[in-house]
Amino acid sequence: MEDLVIGVDLGATNIKVGLVTADGRILSRRRLGTEVREGPGAVAGRICRACRELVSMTESAPGRVLGAGVGCPGSVDSASGVLRFWPNVPDWRNVPLRRMIEDELGMRCVMDNDANVAALAEQWVGTGKGASSLVVLTLGTGIGAGIVLNGRVWRGGNGAAGEVGHMSINPRGPLCSCGNRGCLQVYAGATAMVRRMREAIEAGARTSLADRKDELTAELIHKAALAGDEASRRNIEQTGRYLGVGVSNLMHILNPQVIAFSGGLTAAGEMLMAPLRDEVKCRTLEACRRDTRVSFAALLDDAGVIGAARCFMIG
Amino acid sequence: MEDLVIGVDLGATNIKVGLVTADGRILSRRRLGTEVREGPGAVAGRICRACRELVSMTESAPGRVLGAGVGCPGSVDSASGVLRFWPNVPDWRNVPLRRMIEDELGMRCVMDNDANVAALAEQWVGTGKGASSLVVLTLGTGIGAGIVLNGRVWRGGNGAAGEVGHMSINPRGPLCSCGNRGCLQVYAGATAMVRRMREAIEAGARTSLADRKDELTAELIHKAALAGDEASRRNIEQTGRYLGVGVSNLMHILNPQVIAFSGGLTAAGEMLMAPLRDEVKCRTLEACRRDTRVSFAALLDDAGVIGAARCFMIG
Repeated sequence: MEDLVIGVDLGATNIKVGLVTADGRILSRRRLGTEVREGPGAVAGRICRACRELVSMTESAPGRVLGAGVGCPGSVDSASGVLRFWPNVPDWRNVPLRRMIEDELGMRCVMDNDANVAALAEQWVGTGKGASSLVVLTLGTGIGAGIVLNGRVWRGGNGAAGEVGHMSINPRGPLCSCGNRGCLQVYAGATAMVRRMREAIEAGARTSLADRKDELTAELIHKAALAGDEASRRNIEQTGRYLGVGVSNLMHILNPQVIAFSGGLTAAGEMLMAPLRDEVKCRTLEACRRDTRVSFAALLDDAGVIGAARCFMIG
Repeated sequence: MEDLVIGVDLGATNIKVGLVTADGRILSRRRLGTEVREGPGAVAGRICRACRELVSMTESAPGRVLGAGVGCPGSVDSASGVLRFWPNVPDWRNVPLRRMIEDELGMRCVMDNDANVAALAEQWVGTGKGASSLVVLTLGTGIGAGIVLNGRVWRGGNGAAGEVGHMSINPRGPLCSCGNRGCLQVYAGATAMVRRMREAIEAGARTSLADRKDELTAELIHKAALAGDEASRRNIEQTGRYLGVGVSNLMHILNPQVIAFSGGLTAAGEMLMAPLRDEVKCRTLEACRRDTRVSFAALLDDAGVIGAARCFMIG
């Protein structure tokens, strides 16, 4: 009987757990509300309950589980297993979550940031399968990244690598929430799309969203674009072009084998990807882009669980 | 008796070789003209002659030399030991230099790009001593970099990593020789300094270089700045600020422990470094810059020889 590892994907709304096989399949899964307001102790307890239920509900699992990997949002010190800071839940600070889970569950745990874990999953059995280096960018309000080099997560000197959304692509560009100017995410994040759309409406652009100026979201813009709204299509195209600048920079610096995208904005599909690829092609030295594949992430909602387990497996 | 390794620093003008100890000292050294116009065979022969002379002139060396590392300019395939392309010597294409040297010298060789080799040296016994991750930027006409992560050179998926001079810091900026717009080196390379100075003169700036518009070099600008020329000082300050944008991007993406500078422009010292550090501080997330030291490279002309030997030692 092959060994199994529990993968835990901790989110602000849900805790997802899964039993992951040595070849990266999810054998069984379970989902619970996080109930984050109940505090770290209660959440750790709910994670452990989900893990125990998962093992007991899976025939043949008891006795085969080696341990658990946990993927967390926010800033994680993976060496000490401490969740230092969770932007969505600012009153959680320096929570020793790994130890709390290990103590209650009675098995060894590892812990890492959700972006790192997702990149590991994609490199293992997702769009980067067979590649040893990849960068997975998560496109949402902000833009983060997980970086895998030589099959391992690159976390940086103090665990702060992968903040690709804050690379500057215009030193005198618009102000970012971080205080810097011209960060990639000021041009290519969901908030940037909404801002550009609002500006277009205020400048008198013809668009089906003209009377929805105050309820704009990236999703709404995407839907309008699909329904044929030209201004919305242009907005997504611009987002793709700006992302292309960021991708080109990553290719010049890191020359990874794969650069992939996950997160809400990827719903725009080729409408986003075609201008992105075009911009990359115009901007990038041939040697730096020739052997790099640009694609969407493949594992979607499973990346967190699979990657957390992988994180445990490679230690 | 400790083992020794030969480090070879192949340049367009000189071949430098040195016997390097296991703790990174150069025991003895030798220098020969490259005479690149005589072709790859002759140059390989001169490298081997320099190595043989080095060993025979160093008492106690014979019998202790394990092999040789070679640092080359241009595009190097380190896995196959082929010098693919040397920008300064465009008629050298796909030269199997490592095999040529191994055959003639009768010992094992490794080969890598000179920027990678210099970064390895700085991480081993230079300004990055004790750090496991660093980026060394070489500031000249262009801007290249060697990247060391976990004590190993990061070469990228096909050996094209480290082209930091071509990261775009302004998608609509001036045209670069690569065809892209707004590359870092269009703002912060030696050619950029000269271009900005010429533009300032043409716009009527008061400067001691006003009547030397057609013989401007970065060195001349530096000397004028030292002699109190305000326009030249501002030029260097601007260069430092642009470099700061590039450094900030590297911190956000890679979060290395050390970022260091080598090459001609470093002669400007604090005049360059103070605005650079200031810009980095303004632009960079605290977590990404807090534990990263920004400094000048320490090994100067020895980095090539020491790094080439190190490259051999870590295989």
